[in-house]
Amino acid sequence: MSELSLLVLDADPPPRLGSLSGRVRVLHADASNLAEQLPLADVLLVWDFQSHAVRHAWPGDGPRPRWVHTASAGVDHLLSPELAASDTVVTNARGVFDRPIAEFVAGLVLSFAKDLPGNWALQREHRWRHRETRRVAGTRACVVGTGPIGRAIAATLEALGVTTALAGRTARDGVHGPEDLPQLLAGADWVVCAAPSTEETRGMFDRGRFQQMQPSARFINVGRGDLVVEDDLVEALTKRWIAGAGLDVFEQEPLPADSPLWDAPGLLVSPHMSGDTIGWRDELGAQFLELFELWAAGKPLRNVIDKQRGYVPGH
Amino acid sequence: MSELSLLVLDADPPPRLGSLSGRVRVLHADASNLAEQLPLADVLLVWDFQSHAVRHAWPGDGPRPRWVHTASAGVDHLLSPELAASDTVVTNARGVFDRPIAEFVAGLVLSFAKDLPGNWALQREHRWRHRETRRVAGTRACVVGTGPIGRAIAATLEALGVTTALAGRTARDGVHGPEDLPQLLAGADWVVCAAPSTEETRGMFDRGRFQQMQPSARFINVGRGDLVVEDDLVEALTKRWIAGAGLDVFEQEPLPADSPLWDAPGLLVSPHMSGDTIGWRDELGAQFLELFELWAAGKPLRNVIDKQRGYVPGH
Repeated sequence: MSELSLLVLDADPPPRLGSLSGRVRVLHADASNLAEQLPLADVLLVWDFQSHAVRHAWPGDGPRPRWVHTASAGVDHLLSPELAASDTVVTNARGVFDRPIAEFVAGLVLSFAKDLPGNWALQREHRWRHRETRRVAGTRACVVGTGPIGRAIAATLEALGVTTALAGRTARDGVHGPEDLPQLLAGADWVVCAAPSTEETRGMFDRGRFQQMQPSARFINVGRGDLVVEDDLVEALTKRWIAGAGLDVFEQEPLPADSPLWDAPGLLVSPHMSGDTIGWRDELGAQFLELFELWAAGKPLRNVIDKQRGYVPGH
Repeated sequence: MSELSLLVLDADPPPRLGSLSGRVRVLHADASNLAEQLPLADVLLVWDFQSHAVRHAWPGDGPRPRWVHTASAGVDHLLSPELAASDTVVTNARGVFDRPIAEFVAGLVLSFAKDLPGNWALQREHRWRHRETRRVAGTRACVVGTGPIGRAIAATLEALGVTTALAGRTARDGVHGPEDLPQLLAGADWVVCAAPSTEETRGMFDRGRFQQMQPSARFINVGRGDLVVEDDLVEALTKRWIAGAGLDVFEQEPLPADSPLWDAPGLLVSPHMSGDTIGWRDELGAQFLELFELWAAGKPLRNVIDKQRGYVPGH
């Protein structure tokens, strides 16, 4: 058997591939030379999950890797039409980010309910100003996105006493379809977006959706930035159609310093970090090594993306 | 039967006593005339739970109310030695604050783990700076105080996957005694104080205790301010014996504008609001009316303070 070639689209720090040494020829690429290297690789590891280089380099001549793994939950940054139409298997990092992102969302919900940002603004000015806060138990959430991240968010909010509805692409057991969304949004204290970026979801949170929400509602996005029409969100916050928002993902990342989002009223910005807990890169590396052993042994892979839909089909 | 006299140590807004109208003579007092009015009252409702007027007015001449109810969990502001030695029954607002305070503590824990205050400081400067965060599930907490508030905090943290130990005055089923405290503090990521202010607890969180904690630990106080030696906490934060703290209660409230606590590194200040959710005053009023009906009917009261210990004895 000829030696396997593993091509790594690198980022800093590089993945720990210790157990593969001697068994696999490891090649490294960046955006500038990925197109040249692709024909040489059996397997492509997209370690730089912020890069769009695969989407640009995939079309073209020559053989292509038979398996592509990305160290991210979303695959929108790499899924070109040519890759989608090919026989190449694509897998993602499903499972690594679920609990951390759910905790992050719970932290935002509690921060909004208790006005913790207001406390810290007052603290800077040494001002003591008592306010009444909201109880989280007994409130209602609508989580859009029924993958493991959406489900972990729902479970965590339920553990805090929040009545939580899941909304997905189609109605099924325990999941509401798009036809229920207007009613769910109208009744929700918390609207959480944890959906992937697909043709169906892009731009789904627009003017009309924000107008369906309650004036006291808070919107949280930990899915992908392009699911939200950002200008519409700024309008919704400015005109108080909703009370606040927390965004961890943006159409353009890093968020440009002159974006109106930074100063939109009631908006909390975080730099796409909700899933990234200490040790996360080691977990991502270990997950790839596990999948690699399955693949090398000819066994079925886990976390296989449905390339037409753009995510791992689940429940 | 002669008409009952209810004396209210008032605050703004006054309690809603609707169902008592016509049945009870309601008198009102503030700190300036409480001493004169006390002999006229069968029942004293301490609605202004921040006032120390009862402690000052109770010693002195004349009859005293047979029952005192305070619209607070703590009774340290009213329990003078003379009141403690008397036959007067004292009750508190046990039950109203449990869940709200537990949610507040969970919000602080998640905020520390995810560095939400850091995000909001960066947001003010329009700066995008990715950091790694901590997972809350799998961390360890030690909750000092085994009343309903401490237990609600423990239950809420457990629901988030935090392994939580309760520490109380004496070791018993499910509760650690003071002898375990050094070891519990040394292993805790989160140390939460939810104990009442008593002779035994005052000043218990001092230099020595902070030195027992881990450098990564965060200390949260939702009990009473005088349980903490505030200068020692400032030293602990400044010298990085611990990583941070969240205080909702202080030795002096409102916290003076020149207190070093406002700017202590890693310290989050909130203005004694952790239990005060929208509707809390109505809940406090309704709770008093329920107790009043028991008392007027000669039935046993709930929430009766052990005046030697300074809290409602429980589990």
